[in-house]
Amino acid sequence: MSAAVNFKKCGSVLVTGASRGLGLQIVESLASGGFSPGKIIATVRQPASAQKLQELAEKHPNIHIITLDVVNQESIDKSAEEVARLVQEEGLNCLINNAGINVVADFNTVTAEKMIENFHTNAVAPLMITKAFLPLLKQAASRGGAGGSGSMSIQRAAVINMTSLLGSVELAWGERANNFKWYPYRTSKSALNMVSRCMAVDLEPDGILCMAIHPGWVRTDMGGSQAPLSPKESVSAMLSVIAALTEKDHGSFLNFTGEALPW
Amino acid sequence: MSAAVNFKKCGSVLVTGASRGLGLQIVESLASGGFSPGKIIATVRQPASAQKLQELAEKHPNIHIITLDVVNQESIDKSAEEVARLVQEEGLNCLINNAGINVVADFNTVTAEKMIENFHTNAVAPLMITKAFLPLLKQAASRGGAGGSGSMSIQRAAVINMTSLLGSVELAWGERANNFKWYPYRTSKSALNMVSRCMAVDLEPDGILCMAIHPGWVRTDMGGSQAPLSPKESVSAMLSVIAALTEKDHGSFLNFTGEALPW
Ligand SMILES: NC(=O)c1ccc[n+]([C@@H]2O[C@H](COP(=O)([O-])OP(=O)(O)OC[C@H]3O[C@@H](n4cnc5c(N)ncnc54)[C@H](OP(=O)(O)O)[C@@H]3O)[C@@H](O)[C@H]2O)c1
Ligand SMILES: NC(=O)c1ccc[n+]([C@@H]2O[C@H](COP(=O)([O-])OP(=O)(O)OC[C@H]3O[C@@H](n4cnc5c(N)ncnc54)[C@H](OP(=O)(O)O)[C@@H]3O)[C@@H](O)[C@H]2O)c1
Repeated sequence: MSAAVNFKKCGSVLVTGASRGLGLQIVESLASGGFSPGKIIATVRQPASAQKLQELAEKHPNIHIITLDVVNQESIDKSAEEVARLVQEEGLNCLINNAGINVVADFNTVTAEKMIENFHTNAVAPLMITKAFLPLLKQAASRGGAGGSGSMSIQRAAVINMTSLLGSVELAWGERANNFKWYPYRTSKSALNMVSRCMAVDLEPDGILCMAIHPGWVRTDMGGSQAPLSPKESVSAMLSVIAALTEKDHGSFLNFTGEALPW
Repeated sequence: MSAAVNFKKCGSVLVTGASRGLGLQIVESLASGGFSPGKIIATVRQPASAQKLQELAEKHPNIHIITLDVVNQESIDKSAEEVARLVQEEGLNCLINNAGINVVADFNTVTAEKMIENFHTNAVAPLMITKAFLPLLKQAASRGGAGGSGSMSIQRAAVINMTSLLGSVELAWGERANNFKWYPYRTSKSALNMVSRCMAVDLEPDGILCMAIHPGWVRTDMGGSQAPLSPKESVSAMLSVIAALTEKDHGSFLNFTGEALPW
Protein backbone atom coordinates (compact mmCIF):
# COMPACT_ATOMS: atom_id res chain seq x y z
CA MET A 1 0.00 0.00 0.00
CA SER A 2 1.60 3.25 -1.11
CA ALA A 3 -0.06 5.19 1.72
CA ALA A 4 1.83 3.10 4.25
CA VAL A 5 5.14 3.78 2.57
CA ASN A 6 4.47 7.49 2.55
CA PHE A 7 3.88 7.77 6.28
CA LYS A 8 7.02 5.75 6.96
CA LYS A 9 9.06 8.29 5.06
CA CYS A 10 7.42 11.08 7.07
CA GLY A 11 9.80 12.27 9.81
CA SER A 12 7.25 13.86 12.14
CA VAL A 13 3.50 14.27 12.48
CA LEU A 14 1.85 16.55 15.04
CA VAL A 15 -1.82 16.05 16.01
CA THR A 16 -3.85 18.49 18.14
CA GLY A 17 -6.66 17.24 20.40
CA ALA A 18 -5.08 13.79 20.82
CA SER A 19 -6.73 12.98 24.16
CA ARG A 20 -9.72 11.15 22.64
CA GLY A 21 -11.84 10.68 19.53
CA LEU A 22 -10.26 11.07 16.11
CA GLY A 23 -7.07 12.69 17.43
CA LEU A 24 -6.31 9.75 19.72
CA GLN A 25 -7.16 7.31 16.93
CA ILE A 26 -4.80 9.07 14.52
CA VAL A 27 -1.98 8.67 17.04
CA GLU A 28 -2.85 5.02 17.64
CA SER A 29 -3.18 4.15 13.94
CA LEU A 30 0.09 5.92 13.10
CA ALA A 31 1.94 4.24 15.97
CA SER A 32 0.63 0.72 15.58
CA GLY A 33 0.44 0.46 11.80
CA GLY A 34 3.35 -0.95 9.86
CA PHE A 35 3.99 2.59 8.59
CA SER A 36 4.84 4.67 11.64
CA PRO A 37 6.42 8.10 11.18
CA GLY A 38 9.68 8.90 12.95
CA LYS A 39 8.05 11.10 15.61
CA ILE A 40 4.35 11.25 16.50
CA ILE A 41 3.75 14.43 18.47
CA ALA A 42 0.46 14.07 20.33
CA THR A 43 -0.72 17.36 21.80
CA VAL A 44 -3.43 17.63 24.47
CA ARG A 45 -4.55 20.41 26.78
CA GLN A 46 -4.33 18.22 29.90
CA PRO A 47 -1.74 15.45 29.59
CA ALA A 48 -2.42 14.21 33.12
CA SER A 49 -5.99 13.24 32.28
CA ALA A 50 -5.21 11.76 28.86
CA GLN A 51 -5.04 8.20 30.24
CA LYS A 52 -5.34 6.27 27.01
CA LEU A 53 -2.78 8.39 25.26
CA GLN A 54 -0.33 7.88 28.15
CA GLU A 55 -0.77 4.12 27.84
CA LEU A 56 -0.15 4.26 24.09
CA ALA A 57 3.00 6.32 24.63
CA GLU A 58 4.34 3.72 27.03
CA LYS A 59 4.09 1.11 24.29
CA HIS A 60 5.41 3.26 21.45
CA PRO A 61 8.55 5.28 22.13
CA ASN A 62 8.01 7.43 19.01
CA ILE A 63 4.93 9.05 20.62
CA HIS A 64 5.76 12.36 22.29
CA ILE A 65 3.10 14.02 24.42
CA ILE A 66 3.15 17.81 24.53
CA THR A 67 0.76 20.24 26.23
CA LEU A 68 -1.26 22.46 23.88
CA ASP A 69 -4.49 24.29 24.61
CA VAL A 70 -5.39 25.49 21.12
CA VAL A 71 -7.20 28.67 22.24
CA ASN A 72 -4.34 29.86 24.45
CA GLN A 73 -1.63 31.81 22.59
CA GLU A 74 0.93 31.31 25.36
CA SER A 75 0.34 27.57 25.24
CA ILE A 76 0.67 27.60 21.42
CA ASP A 77 3.98 29.47 21.58
CA LYS A 78 5.33 27.23 24.34
CA SER A 79 4.40 24.04 22.47
CA ALA A 80 6.13 25.34 19.32
CA GLU A 81 9.33 25.83 21.34
CA GLU A 82 9.10 22.32 22.77
CA VAL A 83 8.49 20.80 19.35
CA ALA A 84 11.45 22.77 17.93
CA ARG A 85 13.72 21.16 20.53
CA LEU A 86 12.25 17.75 19.71
CA VAL A 87 12.48 17.80 15.90
CA GLN A 88 15.71 19.83 15.70
CA GLU A 89 16.98 20.62 12.19
CA GLU A 90 14.56 18.16 10.58
CA GLY A 91 11.63 20.47 11.21
CA LEU A 92 7.98 19.38 11.29
CA ASN A 93 6.61 17.48 8.30
CA CYS A 94 2.92 17.21 9.01
CA LEU A 95 0.66 19.34 11.22
CA ILE A 96 -2.86 17.95 11.72
CA ASN A 97 -5.23 20.57 13.17
CA ASN A 98 -7.77 18.15 14.62
CA ALA A 99 -8.93 19.64 17.96
CA GLY A 100 -12.47 20.93 17.72
CA ILE A 101 -15.70 21.52 19.61
CA ASN A 102 -19.39 21.59 18.74
CA VAL A 103 -21.22 24.27 20.68
CA VAL A 104 -24.71 23.06 19.77
CA ALA A 105 -27.22 25.88 19.25
CA ASP A 106 -30.06 26.43 16.80
CA PHE A 107 -31.59 29.72 15.64
CA ASN A 108 -33.53 30.13 18.89
CA THR A 109 -30.76 29.27 21.33
CA VAL A 110 -27.72 30.74 19.59
CA THR A 111 -25.88 33.64 21.28
CA ALA A 112 -22.94 35.79 20.24
CA GLU A 113 -20.82 34.10 22.91
CA LYS A 114 -21.55 30.60 21.57
CA MET A 115 -20.73 31.70 18.02
CA ILE A 116 -17.42 33.24 19.10
CA GLU A 117 -16.38 30.30 21.30
CA ASN A 118 -16.83 27.79 18.48
CA PHE A 119 -15.20 30.09 15.93
CA HIS A 120 -12.17 30.56 18.17
CA THR A 121 -11.49 26.85 18.70
CA ASN A 122 -12.38 25.57 15.23
CA ALA A 123 -11.26 28.34 12.86
CA VAL A 124 -8.94 30.77 14.64
CA ALA A 125 -6.86 28.18 16.52
CA PRO A 126 -5.72 26.26 13.40
CA LEU A 127 -4.58 29.59 11.93
CA MET A 128 -2.67 30.68 15.04
CA ILE A 129 -1.13 27.21 15.44
CA THR A 130 0.00 27.10 11.81
CA LYS A 131 1.58 30.55 12.24
CA ALA A 132 3.48 29.38 15.32
CA PHE A 133 4.72 26.19 13.64
CA LEU A 134 5.55 27.85 10.32
CA PRO A 135 9.33 28.03 10.97
CA LEU A 136 9.37 24.27 11.65
CA LEU A 137 7.23 23.50 8.60
CA LYS A 138 9.47 25.71 6.44
CA GLN A 139 12.51 23.96 7.84
CA ALA A 140 11.10 20.57 6.82
CA ALA A 141 9.96 21.87 3.43
CA SER A 142 13.39 23.33 2.67
CA ARG A 143 14.87 19.85 2.97
CA GLY A 144 12.80 18.91 -0.09
CA GLY A 145 11.01 15.84 1.26
CA ALA A 146 11.97 12.19 1.41
CA GLY A 147 12.90 11.91 -2.24
CA GLY A 148 14.41 15.39 -2.21
CA SER A 149 12.11 16.03 -5.14
CA GLY A 150 10.73 19.34 -3.92
CA SER A 151 7.19 18.42 -4.91
CA MET A 152 4.36 18.80 -2.38
CA SER A 153 3.53 15.96 0.03
CA ILE A 154 3.32 15.12 3.72
CA GLN A 155 6.84 13.70 3.44
CA ARG A 156 7.95 17.25 2.75
CA ALA A 157 5.61 19.56 4.73
CA ALA A 158 1.84 19.78 5.05
CA VAL A 159 -0.97 21.32 7.09
CA ILE A 160 -4.12 19.18 7.34
CA ASN A 161 -7.24 20.85 8.74
CA MET A 162 -9.97 18.63 10.14
CA THR A 163 -13.10 20.28 8.84
CA SER A 164 -16.66 19.02 8.35
CA LEU A 165 -19.19 18.51 5.59
CA LEU A 166 -21.38 20.74 7.77
CA GLY A 167 -19.01 23.58 6.86
CA SER A 168 -20.05 23.36 3.22
CA VAL A 169 -22.27 26.38 2.49
CA GLU A 170 -23.52 24.79 -0.69
CA LEU A 171 -24.63 21.61 1.10
CA ALA A 172 -26.29 23.56 3.96
CA TRP A 173 -29.64 23.16 2.24
CA GLY A 174 -32.61 20.81 2.10
CA GLU A 175 -32.95 17.78 4.36
CA ARG A 176 -29.38 17.86 5.65
CA ALA A 177 -29.70 21.48 6.77
CA ASN A 178 -32.95 20.75 8.57
CA ASN A 179 -31.33 18.01 10.62
CA PHE A 180 -28.27 19.95 11.73
CA LYS A 181 -29.26 23.52 12.57
CA TRP A 182 -25.99 24.16 14.36
CA TYR A 183 -25.11 27.81 13.77
CA PRO A 184 -21.89 27.99 15.83
CA TYR A 185 -20.42 24.76 14.46
CA ARG A 186 -21.40 25.28 10.82
CA THR A 187 -20.09 28.86 10.66
CA SER A 188 -16.86 27.85 12.43
CA LYS A 189 -16.20 25.13 9.85
CA SER A 190 -16.97 27.30 6.81
CA ALA A 191 -14.65 29.89 8.34
CA LEU A 192 -12.03 27.13 8.78
CA ASN A 193 -12.44 26.21 5.11
CA MET A 194 -11.69 29.84 4.19
CA VAL A 195 -8.68 29.87 6.56
CA SER A 196 -7.45 26.64 4.98
CA ARG A 197 -7.75 28.01 1.45
CA CYS A 198 -6.07 31.34 2.33
CA MET A 199 -3.24 29.49 4.08
CA ALA A 200 -2.79 27.29 1.00
CA VAL A 201 -2.14 30.45 -1.02
CA ASP A 202 0.30 31.81 1.57
CA LEU A 203 2.18 28.55 2.22
CA GLU A 204 2.60 27.60 -1.44
CA PRO A 205 5.81 29.60 -2.05
CA ASP A 206 7.46 27.58 0.73
CA GLY A 207 6.33 24.27 -0.75
CA ILE A 208 3.98 23.53 2.16
CA LEU A 209 0.84 21.66 1.18
CA CYS A 210 -2.41 22.75 2.88
CA MET A 211 -5.89 21.23 2.64
CA ALA A 212 -9.08 20.46 4.59
CA ILE A 213 -10.54 16.99 5.14
CA HIS A 214 -13.94 15.73 6.35
CA PRO A 215 -13.59 12.57 8.50
CA GLY A 216 -17.10 11.28 7.79
CA TRP A 217 -19.68 10.90 10.56
CA VAL A 218 -17.79 9.03 13.27
CA ARG A 219 -18.64 7.44 16.63
CA THR A 220 -16.75 9.73 19.01
CA ASP A 221 -17.97 11.88 21.91
CA MET A 222 -18.79 14.52 19.31
CA GLY A 223 -20.21 12.25 16.62
CA GLY A 224 -22.36 10.21 19.01
CA SER A 225 -23.30 6.55 19.00
CA GLN A 226 -25.56 6.76 15.91
CA ALA A 227 -22.67 7.51 13.58
CA PRO A 228 -21.99 4.88 10.90
CA LEU A 229 -18.16 4.91 11.09
CA SER A 230 -15.83 3.72 13.84
CA PRO A 231 -12.87 6.00 14.59
CA LYS A 232 -10.59 3.28 13.20
CA GLU A 233 -12.46 3.10 9.88
CA SER A 234 -12.50 6.89 9.47
CA VAL A 235 -8.85 7.34 10.40
CA SER A 236 -7.66 4.47 8.23
CA ALA A 237 -9.42 5.99 5.21
CA MET A 238 -8.19 9.51 6.01
CA LEU A 239 -4.57 8.46 6.53
CA SER A 240 -4.60 6.81 3.10
CA VAL A 241 -5.91 10.03 1.56
CA ILE A 242 -3.45 12.21 3.49
CA ALA A 243 -0.46 9.99 2.70
CA ALA A 244 -1.23 10.21 -1.01
CA LEU A 245 -1.68 14.00 -1.22
CA THR A 246 0.18 15.83 -3.99
CA GLU A 247 0.18 19.34 -5.50
CA LYS A 248 -3.15 18.67 -7.17
CA ASP A 249 -4.78 18.45 -3.71
CA HIS A 250 -3.27 21.72 -2.48
CA GLY A 251 -6.07 24.05 -1.30
CA SER A 252 -8.69 21.30 -1.56
CA PHE A 253 -11.66 20.18 0.56
CA LEU A 254 -11.78 16.37 0.48
CA ASN A 255 -14.04 13.73 1.93
CA PHE A 256 -12.38 10.90 3.95
CA THR A 257 -12.91 8.81 0.83
CA GLY A 258 -10.73 11.18 -1.20
CA GLU A 259 -13.47 12.85 -3.27
CA ALA A 260 -13.66 16.62 -3.57
CA LEU A 261 -16.50 18.32 -1.68
CA PRO A 262 -18.23 21.58 -2.69
CA TRP A 263 -17.47 24.72 -0.65
CA MET B 1 -39.12 49.75 -14.07
CA SER B 2 -40.56 46.87 -12.07
CA ALA B 3 -37.94 47.27 -9.34
CA ALA B 4 -39.27 50.76 -8.61
CA VAL B 5 -42.82 49.49 -8.28
CA ASN B 6 -41.74 46.77 -5.88
CA PHE B 7 -40.06 49.12 -3.43
CA LYS B 8 -43.08 51.41 -3.50
CA LYS B 9 -45.26 48.54 -2.35
CA CYS B 10 -42.76 47.81 0.45
CA GLY B 11 -44.09 49.19 3.74
CA SER B 12 -40.80 49.38 5.63
CA VAL B 13 -37.09 48.85 5.04
CA LEU B 14 -34.48 48.84 7.82
CA VAL B 15 -30.78 49.41 7.02
CA THR B 16 -27.93 48.92 9.52
CA GLY B 17 -24.76 51.03 9.29
CA ALA B 18 -26.55 53.95 7.61
CA SER B 19 -24.12 56.66 8.73
CA ARG B 20 -21.95 56.52 5.59
CA GLY B 21 -20.92 54.41 2.61
CA LEU B 22 -23.38 51.93 1.12
CA GLY B 23 -25.81 52.11 4.05
CA LEU B 24 -26.21 55.88 3.70
CA GLN B 25 -26.55 55.53 -0.06
CA ILE B 26 -29.26 52.91 0.30
CA VAL B 27 -31.25 55.31 2.49
CA GLU B 28 -30.70 58.18 0.07
CA SER B 29 -31.59 56.18 -3.04
CA LEU B 30 -34.71 54.73 -1.40
CA ALA B 31 -35.83 58.17 -0.16
CA SER B 32 -35.15 60.20 -3.26
CA GLY B 33 -36.12 57.72 -5.95
CA GLY B 34 -39.62 57.68 -7.35
CA PHE B 35 -40.17 54.41 -5.51
CA SER B 36 -39.82 55.20 -1.83
CA PRO B 37 -41.00 52.64 0.74
CA GLY B 38 -43.47 53.74 3.43
CA LYS B 39 -40.87 53.84 6.20
CA ILE B 40 -37.08 53.90 5.79
CA ILE B 41 -35.53 52.97 9.12
CA ALA B 42 -31.91 54.11 9.12
CA THR B 43 -29.96 52.68 12.03
CA VAL B 44 -26.57 54.02 13.16
CA ARG B 45 -24.49 53.54 16.28
CA GLN B 46 -24.05 57.30 16.85
CA PRO B 47 -26.94 59.34 15.45
CA ALA B 48 -25.42 62.61 16.69
CA SER B 49 -22.39 62.26 14.41
CA ALA B 50 -24.32 61.00 11.38
CA GLN B 51 -24.53 64.48 9.85
CA LYS B 52 -25.44 63.55 6.29
CA LEU B 53 -28.12 61.15 7.40
CA GLN B 54 -29.64 63.84 9.63
CA GLU B 55 -29.78 66.21 6.67
CA LEU B 56 -31.46 63.57 4.52
CA ALA B 57 -34.03 62.88 7.23
CA GLU B 58 -34.92 66.57 7.39
CA LYS B 59 -35.81 66.48 3.70
CA HIS B 60 -37.62 63.14 3.74
CA PRO B 61 -40.15 62.56 6.52
CA ASN B 62 -40.29 58.81 5.83
CA ILE B 63 -36.70 58.40 7.10
CA HIS B 64 -36.59 57.34 10.76
CA ILE B 65 -33.24 57.33 12.52
CA ILE B 66 -32.77 54.75 15.26
CA THR B 67 -29.70 53.92 17.36
CA LEU B 68 -28.19 50.47 16.80
CA ASP B 69 -24.68 49.29 17.60
CA VAL B 70 -24.72 45.89 15.92
CA VAL B 71 -22.27 44.22 18.33
CA ASN B 72 -24.19 45.28 21.44
CA GLN B 73 -27.06 42.96 22.39
CA GLU B 74 -28.73 45.56 24.60
CA SER B 75 -28.66 48.02 21.72
CA ILE B 76 -30.11 45.38 19.36
CA ASP B 77 -32.97 44.59 21.74
CA LYS B 78 -33.71 48.27 22.37
CA SER B 79 -33.78 49.08 18.64
CA ALA B 80 -36.19 46.18 18.01
CA GLU B 81 -38.56 47.65 20.62
CA GLU B 82 -38.37 51.08 19.02
CA VAL B 83 -38.98 49.68 15.56
CA ALA B 84 -41.94 47.67 16.89
CA ARG B 85 -43.54 50.92 18.12
CA LEU B 86 -42.82 52.55 14.77
CA VAL B 87 -44.16 49.88 12.39
CA GLN B 88 -47.01 48.71 14.63
CA GLU B 89 -49.14 45.87 13.27
CA GLU B 90 -47.65 46.18 9.79
CA GLY B 91 -44.38 44.60 10.94
CA LEU B 92 -41.04 44.99 9.16
CA ASN B 93 -40.87 44.06 5.47
CA CYS B 94 -37.19 44.28 4.67
CA LEU B 95 -34.12 44.05 6.93
CA ILE B 96 -30.82 44.94 5.26
CA ASN B 97 -27.82 43.82 7.34
CA ASN B 98 -25.29 46.22 5.85
CA ALA B 99 -23.03 47.36 8.72
CA GLY B 100 -19.57 45.84 8.42
CA ILE B 101 -15.89 46.36 9.12
CA ASN B 102 -12.64 45.23 7.52
CA VAL B 103 -9.98 44.47 10.12
CA VAL B 104 -7.11 44.27 7.66
CA ALA B 105 -4.53 41.60 8.55
CA ASP B 106 -2.49 39.15 6.51
CA PHE B 107 -0.97 35.83 7.60
CA ASN B 108 1.87 37.58 9.42
CA THR B 109 -0.14 40.24 11.24
CA VAL B 110 -3.36 38.36 12.02
CA THR B 111 -4.23 37.72 15.69
CA ALA B 112 -7.07 35.86 17.39
CA GLU B 113 -8.50 39.18 18.56
CA LYS B 114 -8.64 40.61 15.02
CA MET B 115 -10.32 37.46 13.72
CA ILE B 116 -12.94 37.55 16.47
CA GLU B 117 -13.64 41.29 16.16
CA ASN B 118 -14.36 41.02 12.44
CA PHE B 119 -16.37 37.82 12.86
CA HIS B 120 -18.52 39.43 15.55
CA THR B 121 -19.48 42.50 13.49
CA ASN B 122 -19.81 40.85 10.08
CA ALA B 123 -21.22 37.39 10.79
CA VAL B 124 -22.60 37.22 14.33
CA ALA B 125 -24.34 40.62 14.36
CA PRO B 126 -26.57 39.92 11.32
CA LEU B 127 -27.68 36.69 13.03
CA MET B 128 -28.44 38.34 16.38
CA ILE B 129 -30.23 41.25 14.67
CA THR B 130 -32.36 38.92 12.56
CA LYS B 131 -33.30 36.99 15.72
CA ALA B 132 -34.34 40.21 17.45
CA PHE B 133 -36.42 41.44 14.51
CA LEU B 134 -37.97 38.05 13.75
CA PRO B 135 -41.33 38.85 15.40
CA LEU B 136 -41.65 41.98 13.24
CA LEU B 137 -40.62 40.12 10.07
CA LYS B 138 -43.09 37.33 10.87
CA GLN B 139 -45.78 39.92 11.45
CA ALA B 140 -45.15 41.42 8.01
CA ALA B 141 -44.92 38.00 6.37
CA SER B 142 -48.21 36.86 7.91
CA ARG B 143 -49.97 39.72 6.10
CA GLY B 144 -49.02 37.99 2.86
CA GLY B 145 -47.29 40.86 1.05
CA ALA B 146 -48.63 43.65 -1.12
CA GLY B 147 -50.55 41.41 -3.43
CA GLY B 148 -51.56 39.16 -0.54
CA SER B 149 -50.18 36.36 -2.68
CA GLY B 150 -48.13 34.71 0.01
CA SER B 151 -45.16 34.21 -2.29
CA MET B 152 -41.71 35.38 -1.21
CA SER B 153 -40.57 38.96 -1.87
CA ILE B 154 -39.39 42.12 -0.11
CA GLN B 155 -42.99 43.35 -0.26
CA ARG B 156 -43.78 40.52 2.09
CA ALA B 157 -40.70 39.98 4.31
CA ALA B 158 -37.01 39.58 3.57
CA VAL B 159 -33.54 39.57 5.15
CA ILE B 160 -30.76 40.86 2.90
CA ASN B 161 -27.18 40.26 4.06
CA MET B 162 -24.45 42.48 2.62
CA THR B 163 -21.67 40.02 2.00
CA SER B 164 -18.60 40.12 -0.25
CA LEU B 165 -17.08 38.24 -3.15
CA LEU B 166 -14.09 37.91 -0.81
CA GLY B 167 -16.25 35.57 1.29
CA SER B 168 -16.36 33.04 -1.54
CA VAL B 169 -14.08 30.15 -0.56
CA GLU B 170 -14.03 28.88 -4.13
CA LEU B 171 -12.84 32.24 -5.49
CA ALA B 172 -10.18 32.66 -2.76
CA TRP B 173 -7.58 31.32 -5.14
CA GLY B 174 -5.09 32.51 -7.74
CA GLU B 175 -4.47 36.17 -8.48
CA ARG B 176 -7.45 37.48 -6.53
CA ALA B 177 -6.39 35.66 -3.37
CA ASN B 178 -2.87 37.01 -3.64
CA ASN B 179 -4.13 40.58 -3.77
CA PHE B 180 -6.47 40.38 -0.80
CA LYS B 181 -4.83 38.35 1.95
CA TRP B 182 -7.33 39.54 4.53
CA TYR B 183 -7.90 36.67 6.93
CA PRO B 184 -10.31 38.39 9.36
CA TYR B 185 -12.51 39.90 6.63
CA ARG B 186 -12.61 36.86 4.35
CA THR B 187 -13.43 34.40 7.13
CA SER B 188 -16.10 36.74 8.53
CA LYS B 189 -17.82 36.93 5.14
CA SER B 190 -17.71 33.19 4.45
CA ALA B 191 -19.16 32.71 7.94
CA LEU B 192 -21.84 35.29 7.06
CA ASN B 193 -22.66 33.32 3.91
CA MET B 194 -23.19 30.22 6.07
CA VAL B 195 -25.34 32.22 8.52
CA SER B 196 -27.36 33.54 5.59
CA ARG B 197 -27.97 30.08 4.17
CA CYS B 198 -28.87 28.56 7.57
CA MET B 199 -31.27 31.43 8.25
CA ALA B 200 -32.87 30.88 4.84
CA VAL B 201 -33.68 27.32 5.92
CA ASP B 202 -35.06 28.49 9.27
CA LEU B 203 -37.07 31.47 7.97
CA GLU B 204 -38.65 29.62 5.04
CA PRO B 205 -41.63 28.19 6.98
CA ASP B 206 -42.62 31.77 7.88
CA GLY B 207 -42.40 32.91 4.24
CA ILE B 208 -39.42 35.19 4.96
CA LEU B 209 -36.96 35.42 2.07
CA CYS B 210 -33.24 35.43 3.00
CA MET B 211 -30.22 35.91 0.74
CA ALA B 212 -26.71 37.41 0.55
CA ILE B 213 -25.60 40.06 -1.95
CA HIS B 214 -22.18 41.37 -3.05
CA PRO B 215 -22.26 45.13 -3.75
CA GLY B 216 -19.31 45.12 -6.16
CA TRP B 217 -16.11 46.99 -5.37
CA VAL B 218 -17.32 50.44 -4.36
CA ARG B 219 -15.72 53.81 -3.55
CA THR B 220 -16.54 54.09 0.17
CA ASP B 221 -14.27 54.47 3.20
CA MET B 222 -13.92 50.69 3.12
CA GLY B 223 -13.66 50.21 -0.64
CA GLY B 224 -11.16 53.05 -1.14
CA SER B 225 -10.73 55.51 -3.99
CA GLN B 226 -9.46 52.91 -6.50
CA ALA B 227 -12.80 51.12 -6.66
CA PRO B 228 -14.57 51.18 -10.04
CA LEU B 229 -18.12 51.77 -8.77
CA SER B 230 -19.67 54.82 -7.12
CA PRO B 231 -21.99 54.12 -4.17
CA LYS B 232 -24.89 55.34 -6.31
CA GLU B 233 -24.11 52.90 -9.15
CA SER B 234 -23.72 49.95 -6.77
CA VAL B 235 -26.86 50.74 -4.78
CA SER B 236 -28.97 51.40 -7.85
CA ALA B 237 -28.02 48.00 -9.28
CA MET B 238 -28.50 46.23 -5.91
CA LEU B 239 -31.91 47.78 -5.26
CA SER B 240 -33.09 46.55 -8.67
CA VAL B 241 -31.92 43.04 -7.80
CA ILE B 242 -33.40 43.17 -4.29
CA ALA B 243 -36.73 44.53 -5.49
CA ALA B 244 -37.08 41.70 -7.98
CA LEU B 245 -36.24 38.82 -5.58
CA THR B 246 -38.58 35.83 -5.56
CA GLU B 247 -38.59 32.30 -4.10
CA LYS B 248 -36.01 31.19 -6.62
CA ASP B 249 -33.47 33.57 -5.00
CA HIS B 250 -34.13 32.30 -1.47
CA GLY B 251 -30.84 31.15 0.11
CA SER B 252 -28.77 32.57 -2.76
CA PHE B 253 -25.47 34.49 -3.04
CA LEU B 254 -25.87 37.09 -5.78
CA ASN B 255 -23.64 39.68 -7.36
CA PHE B 256 -24.97 43.28 -7.53
CA THR B 257 -25.65 42.51 -11.19
CA GLY B 258 -28.01 39.69 -10.21
CA GLU B 259 -25.81 36.73 -11.19
CA ALA B 260 -25.25 33.84 -8.80
CA LEU B 261 -21.78 33.62 -7.21
CA PRO B 262 -20.04 30.40 -6.10
CA TRP B 263 -19.77 29.73 -2.37
N1 LIG C 1 -16.97 12.84 14.89
C1 LIG C 1 -17.49 13.26 13.76
O1 LIG C 1 -18.47 12.69 13.26
C2 LIG C 1 -16.88 14.45 13.06
C3 LIG C 1 -17.46 14.83 11.83
C4 LIG C 1 -16.92 15.92 11.15
C5 LIG C 1 -15.82 16.58 11.68
N2 LIG C 1 -15.28 16.21 12.88
C6 LIG C 1 -14.14 16.97 13.37
O2 LIG C 1 -13.08 16.11 13.76
C7 LIG C 1 -12.31 16.68 14.81
C8 LIG C 1 -12.20 15.70 15.96
O3 LIG C 1 -13.53 15.41 16.41
P1 LIG C 1 -13.88 14.20 17.40
O4 LIG C 1 -15.08 13.56 16.85
O5 LIG C 1 -12.67 13.41 17.68
O6 LIG C 1 -14.33 15.07 18.69
P2 LIG C 1 -14.21 14.70 20.25
O7 LIG C 1 -14.33 13.25 20.43
O8 LIG C 1 -15.18 15.61 20.93
O9 LIG C 1 -12.70 15.16 20.61
C9 LIG C 1 -12.37 16.49 20.51
C10 LIG C 1 -10.89 16.63 20.80
O10 LIG C 1 -10.55 18.03 20.65
C11 LIG C 1 -9.88 18.42 21.84
N3 LIG C 1 -10.03 19.85 22.14
C12 LIG C 1 -11.15 20.61 22.18
N4 LIG C 1 -10.85 21.87 22.55
C13 LIG C 1 -9.51 21.90 22.75
C14 LIG C 1 -8.58 22.91 23.15
N5 LIG C 1 -9.00 24.17 23.43
N6 LIG C 1 -7.28 22.60 23.23
C15 LIG C 1 -6.85 21.34 22.94
N7 LIG C 1 -7.66 20.35 22.58
C16 LIG C 1 -8.98 20.63 22.49
C17 LIG C 1 -10.47 17.56 22.93
O11 LIG C 1 -9.63 17.58 24.06
P3 LIG C 1 -10.18 17.39 25.59
O12 LIG C 1 -10.25 15.91 25.82
O13 LIG C 1 -9.15 18.10 26.41
O14 LIG C 1 -11.54 18.04 25.66
C18 LIG C 1 -10.54 16.22 22.21
O15 LIG C 1 -9.27 15.62 22.20
C19 LIG C 1 -13.03 17.98 15.20
O16 LIG C 1 -12.42 19.07 14.56
C20 LIG C 1 -14.44 17.76 14.64
O17 LIG C 1 -15.09 18.99 14.35
C21 LIG C 1 -15.80 15.15 13.57
N1 LIG D 1 -17.10 48.99 -0.39
C1 LIG D 1 -16.90 47.83 -0.97
O1 LIG D 1 -16.20 47.75 -2.00
C2 LIG D 1 -17.54 46.59 -0.44
C3 LIG D 1 -17.32 45.39 -1.14
C4 LIG D 1 -17.91 44.21 -0.66
C5 LIG D 1 -18.71 44.26 0.47
N2 LIG D 1 -18.89 45.43 1.15
C6 LIG D 1 -19.75 45.39 2.35
O2 LIG D 1 -20.75 46.38 2.28
C7 LIG D 1 -21.10 46.82 3.61
C8 LIG D 1 -20.98 48.33 3.69
O3 LIG D 1 -19.64 48.67 3.41
P1 LIG D 1 -19.15 50.16 3.09
O4 LIG D 1 -18.25 50.09 1.95
O5 LIG D 1 -20.31 51.09 3.09
O6 LIG D 1 -18.27 50.41 4.42
P2 LIG D 1 -17.94 51.77 5.20
O7 LIG D 1 -17.95 52.93 4.27
O8 LIG D 1 -16.72 51.50 6.00
O9 LIG D 1 -19.21 51.90 6.19
C9 LIG D 1 -19.40 50.91 7.17
C10 LIG D 1 -20.69 51.19 7.89
O10 LIG D 1 -20.89 50.17 8.87
C11 LIG D 1 -21.13 50.80 10.11
N3 LIG D 1 -20.72 50.00 11.26
C12 LIG D 1 -19.54 49.35 11.49
N4 LIG D 1 -19.56 48.76 12.69
C13 LIG D 1 -20.77 49.05 13.24
C14 LIG D 1 -21.38 48.73 14.48
N5 LIG D 1 -20.76 47.99 15.43
N6 LIG D 1 -22.66 49.16 14.70
C15 LIG D 1 -23.30 49.89 13.77
N7 LIG D 1 -22.76 50.24 12.59
C16 LIG D 1 -21.50 49.82 12.34
C17 LIG D 1 -20.34 52.10 10.05
O11 LIG D 1 -20.83 52.98 11.05
P3 LIG D 1 -19.86 54.11 11.74
O12 LIG D 1 -19.92 55.32 10.82
O13 LIG D 1 -20.52 54.33 13.08
O14 LIG D 1 -18.47 53.54 11.83
C18 LIG D 1 -20.67 52.54 8.63
O15 LIG D 1 -21.95 53.10 8.56
C19 LIG D 1 -20.14 46.09 4.55
O16 LIG D 1 -20.77 44.95 5.09
C20 LIG D 1 -19.00 45.67 3.64
O17 LIG D 1 -18.30 44.54 4.11
C21 LIG D 1 -18.33 46.59 0.72
